[in-house]
Amino acid sequence: MHLFFSEDLAISYLTGEEARHCYKVLRLTLGDQIQITDGKGRLAKAVLTQVDANRVDFHIVQSISMEQSAYAVHMAICPTRKAERNEWMVEKMTELGVLQIQFVVSEHTHRETLNRVVNLERLNRIALSAMKQSQQYFLPKISIQSSFPAFLAQVDQPQRYIAYVTDHNVPEHLLNQVQAAQEVCVLIGPEGDFSSTEIKEAVEAGFKPVSLGSTRLRTETAAVMACHAVHLAQVLDKR
Amino acid sequence: MHLFFSEDLAISYLTGEEARHCYKVLRLTLGDQIQITDGKGRLAKAVLTQVDANRVDFHIVQSISMEQSAYAVHMAICPTRKAERNEWMVEKMTELGVLQIQFVVSEHTHRETLNRVVNLERLNRIALSAMKQSQQYFLPKISIQSSFPAFLAQVDQPQRYIAYVTDHNVPEHLLNQVQAAQEVCVLIGPEGDFSSTEIKEAVEAGFKPVSLGSTRLRTETAAVMACHAVHLAQVLDKR
Repeated sequence: MHLFFSEDLAISYLTGEEARHCYKVLRLTLGDQIQITDGKGRLAKAVLTQVDANRVDFHIVQSISMEQSAYAVHMAICPTRKAERNEWMVEKMTELGVLQIQFVVSEHTHRETLNRVVNLERLNRIALSAMKQSQQYFLPKISIQSSFPAFLAQVDQPQRYIAYVTDHNVPEHLLNQVQAAQEVCVLIGPEGDFSSTEIKEAVEAGFKPVSLGSTRLRTETAAVMACHAVHLAQVLDKR
Repeated sequence: MHLFFSEDLAISYLTGEEARHCYKVLRLTLGDQIQITDGKGRLAKAVLTQVDANRVDFHIVQSISMEQSAYAVHMAICPTRKAERNEWMVEKMTELGVLQIQFVVSEHTHRETLNRVVNLERLNRIALSAMKQSQQYFLPKISIQSSFPAFLAQVDQPQRYIAYVTDHNVPEHLLNQVQAAQEVCVLIGPEGDFSSTEIKEAVEAGFKPVSLGSTRLRTETAAVMACHAVHLAQVLDKR
């Protein structure tokens, strides 16, 4: 059954892109069944009661609420300089079931190009599409935090990890450090890495250094693999 | 130190794109030191003896050979219909250190668009760039296998896994099945998945069904995450 998105399920119609997709692409019609999620864990089954290109009315026949998983993953990433790399990172982390994505401006972030490479409207559209594609019901919250100290002050996840490139005193892999069933925040550095002051400040704010493996990963790859490693820690816990 | 690629280290000069990059982009000159790998595990340190736009001569001062890792990962993937998704899959698996990537044509593969969406020359360039970027010395072998039965007949890795979408009898996660320090082949289905005949044939050829997690992943995401899970199994083994 096709999955649609509507921010508020109390409003019983789709408009805009969702209505167009229903009418023009899928050519659904009166009496057809659809699923709708609000991206906050609620899923409704509904029957179409009126369909045109601009507005699709539905009647909800069943509705369930999903629980957010106990190990909700918050990713905090210093954005790469290429829009498409930030975009695929958002798509892939959404597929994996990330709950929150924060783009954090650090010392080595190019501020001049930030608005172009982190286009929140576009990233939200990509996340929405990936959430529906992978049949999930939580839409990640995506935001920009333009102050590194403000980011550190505001983090409240009980588990906090920071990954950066180092050749000496390589820390233990994230998978071996992360505890299952607890919220996690993982902080990933930019191209050119964090400054030593930033690493010091993050460690003081409770971020534990972690490794992400023996090969040198690009920022966006590191972010996706870190997100994946946290999910795999839950898989291991179930053994 | 900058890393270059030369298929044969017995030939002591770079040509083509590598020479251009050295001369035009990095503006290296006589006496500068570089590193060169043959993508087969050999790494040489060398000094430039002559530099121009078309040819860069070097003198090797030191050379070492890396051992291929015991758990070499062979990924066999039914290609997606979008060239850029196949391309990023190759880039990311190369960053993670995959040894071999085979694009396997299955029943649900679009044969008509195959040569466009799996452009080996372009994919090899992407893998080369990713190998250098992530400072590795093994270039994955990338190929197309246009017969599914021929693929099954030729596989010789001791560990073989197949991932496909199923809602009943969900198998154990790859991470919980894979054995460390042994060669692995993981087979990933296309959009629209394998046919039931193909799954049956693969299982008969020794492929064990595995899960890749609770969310539904796109083909290219599944491939990269499977590759990552095999690497993480080695990390766990070291605990």
